[in-house]
Amino acid sequence: MRVALIQQRYHGSKEATTKKTLDLINRVEGVDLVLLQELHQAPYFCQEESTDWFTLAQDFEIDLEFWRWVSEERRIVLVASLFEQRAPGLYHNTAVVFDKGKIAGRYRKMHIPDDPGFYEKFYFTPGDLGFEPIETSVGRLGVLICWDQWFPEAARIMALKGAQILLYPTAIGWFDDDPQEEQRRQLEAWITIQRSHAIANGLPLVAVNRVGFEEDRSGCLKGIRFWGNSFACGPQGELLIQLSTDQEESGVVEIDLDRSREVREIWPFLRDRRIEAYSCLLERYCDGSEKNR
Amino acid sequence: MRVALIQQRYHGSKEATTKKTLDLINRVEGVDLVLLQELHQAPYFCQEESTDWFTLAQDFEIDLEFWRWVSEERRIVLVASLFEQRAPGLYHNTAVVFDKGKIAGRYRKMHIPDDPGFYEKFYFTPGDLGFEPIETSVGRLGVLICWDQWFPEAARIMALKGAQILLYPTAIGWFDDDPQEEQRRQLEAWITIQRSHAIANGLPLVAVNRVGFEEDRSGCLKGIRFWGNSFACGPQGELLIQLSTDQEESGVVEIDLDRSREVREIWPFLRDRRIEAYSCLLERYCDGSEKNR
Repeated sequence: MRVALIQQRYHGSKEATTKKTLDLINRVEGVDLVLLQELHQAPYFCQEESTDWFTLAQDFEIDLEFWRWVSEERRIVLVASLFEQRAPGLYHNTAVVFDKGKIAGRYRKMHIPDDPGFYEKFYFTPGDLGFEPIETSVGRLGVLICWDQWFPEAARIMALKGAQILLYPTAIGWFDDDPQEEQRRQLEAWITIQRSHAIANGLPLVAVNRVGFEEDRSGCLKGIRFWGNSFACGPQGELLIQLSTDQEESGVVEIDLDRSREVREIWPFLRDRRIEAYSCLLERYCDGSEKNR
Repeated sequence: MRVALIQQRYHGSKEATTKKTLDLINRVEGVDLVLLQELHQAPYFCQEESTDWFTLAQDFEIDLEFWRWVSEERRIVLVASLFEQRAPGLYHNTAVVFDKGKIAGRYRKMHIPDDPGFYEKFYFTPGDLGFEPIETSVGRLGVLICWDQWFPEAARIMALKGAQILLYPTAIGWFDDDPQEEQRRQLEAWITIQRSHAIANGLPLVAVNRVGFEEDRSGCLKGIRFWGNSFACGPQGELLIQLSTDQEESGVVEIDLDRSREVREIWPFLRDRRIEAYSCLLERYCDGSEKNR
């Protein structure tokens, strides 16, 4: 399976940005699956809390039809990352998978961050579709989104439900004021934890992140420098491709889904899980305080 | 807290090997916590399945007393990795934590591997003490053992139960016949997945592995070249120390347990876990087959 990673910046408007996305898609040849970054049509608006941005989600149905059409035209499986209006006042951060003109399924971001500059809890209701792989003509896709990548639980459940590959549309970056050493730790941690999901579950993984500096329109913070470094790794966590820190670009990687069987047979982690001893995983914190109020 | 990593080879007998362990411990100055490798008194006997090796476990009580004495003499917290006879025909791979002359607690390896050359299921009954941090004078230690390191569940539960540091006595190595590229993937995966446990849980982590080549006494396989690379990382997964691939040596690293709070406050993964959506983690595989027999 040939997978394209489309890493780009925001170009000031949805139209200009989407045009660039299509340019990048058109430049890759003979790909089966295309992964776009998180909220690829929009700026990373979660830098501020403003109701203005909810208008973007009103076009969800139009967006669906547009990206469905792209997947049909290009005969690809396409993972788009959209802002979904479910009802006025009820919005999700939603990845939609299109399979050559059909909607194959959607995933609503389950883990929602809220940190300075990443005020997603204001915009996105936590997903209620659970962690369900999406069946497509190229395989069962374990689509997760950005903050989900820090939670081994999400990747594990996708694997236990039969996902054949893990996909992470992402928007993550640095604050320029952070020391270089801290910036390096953050980037390394981001790559390391995702590679570890590949290893723990014997699955290939693709993460696509945006690039470019986006200022904080509210002026509270100085803005985010999205760090790119979109990458793919195999089921032993081995890096297969890694894009630049600051360039708009596409990458194409060949991924062999059959290698998972081979790796899992000699690294049989799924065989040895101690499920009878894992009940604590369903608790917030295992200090008993919610039982002894 | 100053932590010593003691990475060594097997010297042909328990006496000679233990003498070397004590030499290495004596060479480190002013340490609070000492971590030894998995089954540090013995060869890695699980390369073959032979009842001969069970005799080693009969000395468990003597071993306890010896390492308790070492911890008292040196005024250290010491994590030893021993072969425990619980009853004839019932054995565990057990880490024991000694705190300046007292037994602070024990952990019985929960995840037991069984691969060519690593026939541990023959020797070790899977642990029945669960994942419980051990309280000591230097903090609550999340002691896990080797194969446990491939399971994010184990690290997570230790964190949820209040562990302040994750510790992994280990015995892992290469087969010389494997291509170099495969050997590199294995070593990188081993480091990557453990760093990811530090990241996911905002905890420092120390892993100690043995070095040296040990032949397979049964002659079935050619033996294992233990790859060393004992290391420690901080709560962002940042490497703090990494020992060599093939040398017997000790390393000392300063670990600041208070950094976990700082890291967790800005990377608040524990805040956002979707525990109501994790029930699949308690299943072997989420295909429903065990319910629909």
